[in-house]
Amino acid sequence: MNGLPQQVQDLISAFSCLPGVGEKTASRLVVYLLGDDSGLAARISAGLSSLKSKTGWCQVCYGLVSVDRDLCEICGSPKRDHTQVCVVSRPMDVIVLERAGIYNGLYHVLHGSISPVDGINQEDLKIDELVQRVKRGIIREVILATSPGLEGDTTALFIDEQLARLDVRVTRLARGLPVGADLEYADFGTLHRAMTGRS
Amino acid sequence: MNGLPQQVQDLISAFSCLPGVGEKTASRLVVYLLGDDSGLAARISAGLSSLKSKTGWCQVCYGLVSVDRDLCEICGSPKRDHTQVCVVSRPMDVIVLERAGIYNGLYHVLHGSISPVDGINQEDLKIDELVQRVKRGIIREVILATSPGLEGDTTALFIDEQLARLDVRVTRLARGLPVGADLEYADFGTLHRAMTGRS
Repeated sequence: MNGLPQQVQDLISAFSCLPGVGEKTASRLVVYLLGDDSGLAARISAGLSSLKSKTGWCQVCYGLVSVDRDLCEICGSPKRDHTQVCVVSRPMDVIVLERAGIYNGLYHVLHGSISPVDGINQEDLKIDELVQRVKRGIIREVILATSPGLEGDTTALFIDEQLARLDVRVTRLARGLPVGADLEYADFGTLHRAMTGRS
Repeated sequence: MNGLPQQVQDLISAFSCLPGVGEKTASRLVVYLLGDDSGLAARISAGLSSLKSKTGWCQVCYGLVSVDRDLCEICGSPKRDHTQVCVVSRPMDVIVLERAGIYNGLYHVLHGSISPVDGINQEDLKIDELVQRVKRGIIREVILATSPGLEGDTTALFIDEQLARLDVRVTRLARGLPVGADLEYADFGTLHRAMTGRS
């Protein structure tokens, strides 16, 4: 856009690359940061500059961990149930489940879903690492929490097959109507699941 | 939140301070940046670290300008109509109007609205600077584009009074139904304005 300092234009372009942030939102954020006197811009800048260098992946669950540690807080905690493993596609899913505070076991982050269209096969995911984890014999239940949908379901099915001959219980998160949803707006797949899975 | 590296937690907290960004959106942005390989985090970090030091306010219109220049691109452009000045509350408003591409005059950024509740009086705004600008005699029309509402209207009224004895035309942006709006959802103030201002 004309009329704006190059520095501001560049930053608006960069913010616009974030998911869910358009040019208008990006402009608003940059102008807000320009007028802010609490040092927020410096805090975000400093945090971002060392984000990747200070963060790594846990050697057990492949979730987020400080780079100076091998095990994440969850895998290293004696308070968590080490016989349960919840399998998720992305690191974000761990944050979502932890924030809900409904689960006290461990996690396993696949870092993707099987998607032949995008060229993502089982070898690209942390599936073999999950099988090795289960083979060590402590885990009693594997909860498949991949997102409902073609790719998540394919991934879950493949993992289910891989774990079939091992002595472990494999479950999936329940499907049905979301709490607070209106029947009128539910899609066919959700309605079908809700009907067949009625209790 | 427990279970996350301190670096990630700090950055999520910082992002959450931005307007319109909650903890969940902040988490999503940080996790996205962690998985991004295009150098976006570094771009945003670098842009933010020098944002304030490289940006200042134009000495004429008080809009955004590179710190190495006195006049912004708009004030310095011979292609713009220097007899028209559009008065806005915030630097963001200039961006919004410029993006719309409907105006070719100059701007004057007040940096706020009169709001006795918040302790913001006329002296805190760039109103006196506007009066001095008009007194120089080049400006023929002042377009008051403060936001519709108590504070914006108070500010516009005050400026109107200040400019009353000067040889300049003072206008306000039209009020009425927004394009695409449904009559059913319009509030009383908007309907009243639309009716009295019918054409």
